[in-house]
Amino acid sequence: MKKNVLLAQSGGPTAVINSSIIGAYDAAKASGVVDRIYSAVGGIEGVLNENLIDLTDVSDEKIRKLRYTPSSGLFSCRHVLPNDFNDEEYRRIFEVFEEHNIGYFFYNGGNDSMDTADKLNRYAKLNGYDIKVNGIPKTIDNDLFGTDHCPGFGSAAKYINTTLCECAFDTFSYPNSKTVIIMETMGRNAGWLAASACLAQYNSKQIADLIYLPETAFDMDSFLSDISNKLDNQTMVFAVVSEGVRNADGKPYFSSSKNTQDKFGHHQLGGLASVLAEEVKKNIIKRVKTVNPDISQRCASHMMSKTDYEEAYLAGAKAFEFAMDGISGVMSAFERKSNSPYIIDIVPAPLEKAANTEKTIPRDWINAKGNNLTNKFKDYALPLIQGEVLLPYSKGLPDYVVLDEDRIQKKLPNL
Amino acid sequence: MKKNVLLAQSGGPTAVINSSIIGAYDAAKASGVVDRIYSAVGGIEGVLNENLIDLTDVSDEKIRKLRYTPSSGLFSCRHVLPNDFNDEEYRRIFEVFEEHNIGYFFYNGGNDSMDTADKLNRYAKLNGYDIKVNGIPKTIDNDLFGTDHCPGFGSAAKYINTTLCECAFDTFSYPNSKTVIIMETMGRNAGWLAASACLAQYNSKQIADLIYLPETAFDMDSFLSDISNKLDNQTMVFAVVSEGVRNADGKPYFSSSKNTQDKFGHHQLGGLASVLAEEVKKNIIKRVKTVNPDISQRCASHMMSKTDYEEAYLAGAKAFEFAMDGISGVMSAFERKSNSPYIIDIVPAPLEKAANTEKTIPRDWINAKGNNLTNKFKDYALPLIQGEVLLPYSKGLPDYVVLDEDRIQKKLPNL
Repeated sequence: MKKNVLLAQSGGPTAVINSSIIGAYDAAKASGVVDRIYSAVGGIEGVLNENLIDLTDVSDEKIRKLRYTPSSGLFSCRHVLPNDFNDEEYRRIFEVFEEHNIGYFFYNGGNDSMDTADKLNRYAKLNGYDIKVNGIPKTIDNDLFGTDHCPGFGSAAKYINTTLCECAFDTFSYPNSKTVIIMETMGRNAGWLAASACLAQYNSKQIADLIYLPETAFDMDSFLSDISNKLDNQTMVFAVVSEGVRNADGKPYFSSSKNTQDKFGHHQLGGLASVLAEEVKKNIIKRVKTVNPDISQRCASHMMSKTDYEEAYLAGAKAFEFAMDGISGVMSAFERKSNSPYIIDIVPAPLEKAANTEKTIPRDWINAKGNNLTNKFKDYALPLIQGEVLLPYSKGLPDYVVLDEDRIQKKLPNL
Repeated sequence: MKKNVLLAQSGGPTAVINSSIIGAYDAAKASGVVDRIYSAVGGIEGVLNENLIDLTDVSDEKIRKLRYTPSSGLFSCRHVLPNDFNDEEYRRIFEVFEEHNIGYFFYNGGNDSMDTADKLNRYAKLNGYDIKVNGIPKTIDNDLFGTDHCPGFGSAAKYINTTLCECAFDTFSYPNSKTVIIMETMGRNAGWLAASACLAQYNSKQIADLIYLPETAFDMDSFLSDISNKLDNQTMVFAVVSEGVRNADGKPYFSSSKNTQDKFGHHQLGGLASVLAEEVKKNIIKRVKTVNPDISQRCASHMMSKTDYEEAYLAGAKAFEFAMDGISGVMSAFERKSNSPYIIDIVPAPLEKAANTEKTIPRDWINAKGNNLTNKFKDYALPLIQGEVLLPYSKGLPDYVVLDEDRIQKKLPNL
C-alpha cells in the first residue's frame, strides 16, 4: 500500500515559500510512489488538530497559482514542540500520522521549524515509526546554519533594493535640499537583509552610504558623525539599519516593546528608523525621511527574484528526493560551487545543526568601521537577486490564490 | 527662426511624471517646428538660476529610459511665485526665457505648479511676451480640479492595492491569531489614495474592511468600535487611513510635527498608523501591524499602471499640441466618456481653475458611515490601475537612469 505525504509550513512567510511546497508536491506527484498529498492547516498545530487538506483534490490551476502567491499558502503557526518526548503532543502527532498513513512529512520553515522537524525525526526513529521527516528551509533573514543561503532571502533583498533605489531617486529630485533618508529592514540577530542593501548601484557606485548591522556594535555618536561627515560632501545621505542593531554589550539597541518576548524568547522589534530620524533631526538636519518596508519585504511576490523562486522550488523537490533515497532528518541545503558563473548544488544537511544555530555575516564581509559591506558580501549576494518572475494579473492586480476558500471563509469571513 | 521648448517639473514626484515629460518632448521633436528642447534643473528655480539642460543632446537610449524612471527626472522644487507681478522674479524668468529663445514652456506638477504656470501665462500676456505656457498635471493625490483624474494616481493606487493584498495574504497565514492591520496612505485634504484601497478583492469580496478619509469626520471611538465589531466575526481586520483624516471640526486628526508648515501652509503629516495602532493595542487587541508605503507609493515605477503610464505620456504630448493650436494657459485635462469600456478624451482646461481648488471625493461615493466606499468610486477607480509595464532590468534591478550624471555627481557625489 502506497504511503501518503504531509506538507506543512511554519514561522514567518516569504515571497517564495509556496514555491518550495509546490516543488515538493510536484516531485511527490511525479514519483508515482505516493498516494495522497495532504497539507496541515497552520503547521504542526494543523497536525495536532487533525486539520488537513487533501491537495490531491485541488485543481491544477489553483496549485500553479499557489506557487507564486505570497505568504504561507498552507497557513502557518509558531508552535514549539516540548523537549520531553513523553509529552502528549508527540503521541497525538504520530497518531494523526498513522491515521492518515503518512510516510513522508516535510516541514517548510526557519530555525524553529527545523527544530520541530528534527524532534519529530528523532522521535520517529526512537519509537520505530516508518516515516521520513525532512526540512525545507525558508527565511528572509538568511540566518539558517548549514546552507549557503535560504530561499526567501533573494526575493526580500530584491524588493529592498528596488525600494531603496526608487526612494533614492525620489529623494534626489530636489537638488537644493539636503536630505537624510533612513531605511529599516528586518533581521533580529543577523544583518543579511540590511547588508543586501549594498547591492543597488548607480553607475557602479553604491546608493546606500551607510549600513548598520547587528554583527557589529551600534553607537549613536558614531552614527550621527557618519551621517554628518557624509552630508559635508553630498546632498542626500542614505542610511540602512537592521532592526536588530545592538549596543557594544550585545543588547538590542532598540525595542519598541521591551517587555514583550515571543514564545521563543525573541524580542519584538521595529520602529528603529523613527528613533534614529529623531536623533538626526535633533542634532544635524531637519529634513529626514524614513522608509520601512515592514512586512512587505517578506511577502512582495510581485518582486520575486527568479533565482530565488526556482531555487525554492528545487529545495522542496529535493526534500522529497532525499526521502526517496531513504534519507530522513535532513534539510535541503545549498552548496555554492562558484559565484560567477553562479552554480549551486542542493545537498542534505543534518537538521539538528540548522535547528538552533543562527548564521551571521562573517566579519571580513563587513568593513572595518562596521558601517558598510565589502566586495566579498556583494559577490555572495548579487547572484541571489537575479531574474524576474512575470506574474499573471487579474483586474490590475497580481492573481494570487487562497488554497481553501471555504475553510478560510469560516475563519476569515472577510476573505 | 524656430523657437525653443522649455520643460520643467515641480512638486512631489510620481512614478509616471517622466512619462509626461517624454510625451511633451516627443511631440515637440516630431513637430518639426521647434529648434532646441531644454529642461530646467529643479523646476522654476532652475529657470531663475539659468540652470538648463539641453535635452536635444541627450541620447535617445537615455530619453527612453527616463520615461519609466521614477521621481522627477528633470529635478523638482517647491517654489511659490509672488502674487506681485512687479517682483524681480518675473523679470528674471522672462529674461532667461528670452535669452534662450523659449517659445513654449510646459510645467509638470500639481496644484501649486499649475498656480506657477497660470501666473507666468498671465504675466506673459500682460507684458506682450510671445510664449505659450501650459500645464501638465501630475499628482498621486488626484486632487487637481478640472480633470477626471491625474497622472500618477493610477500607479500609486496600483502599488497601494498590491501592497495591501500581499500584506493581507501575509497576515492571514496565521489562522489562529486575531490580527488588526492598519495601512496609512498619503493624502492631505483629499482621500483618493486611501479610497483606492477598496479595489483589491479576493473572490469578489473587498479585502480592506474599513477605509477612513479626510472627506468625512474621523472619530477615535467610532474607529475603535468599527474595528471591534469586525473582529467579532473575523480573524483579520484590515483598516486603511488617509494621513489627512480630520476631526469633526475639520482639523487634521494627527500631525507628527504640529508646528511645522511648509511654504504653502501645508501641515507635515505622517505616523498616524502607529498612533492608531497604539489605541487598538490599548483598547482591543495586542496583535496589531502597521503598513506605511510612505514615499514608495509615489515612486514605485516597478508597479506602474500601464493605463496611467500611457495617459501621462499623452497628457504631455497634448500640452504641446494645444500650444501648436495657439492655446496658452491651459492644463491637459482628462474627460471621461465611459467607464466600461473605459474611454477618455484629453481637453484643455483653464489653469486658474486647477491652480487653487482641491478636488475631494463626492460624498455619495463614500458610504453613509464614512468608513468605506460605494460602487460609484470603484467604477471610477478600477480602470485607472489596469495594465502592467514591463521594465528592463539590469543586474537584478530596474534599469533607471539619471538625466545628467556630471551635474548630479557634483551635487550628489554619492550618486
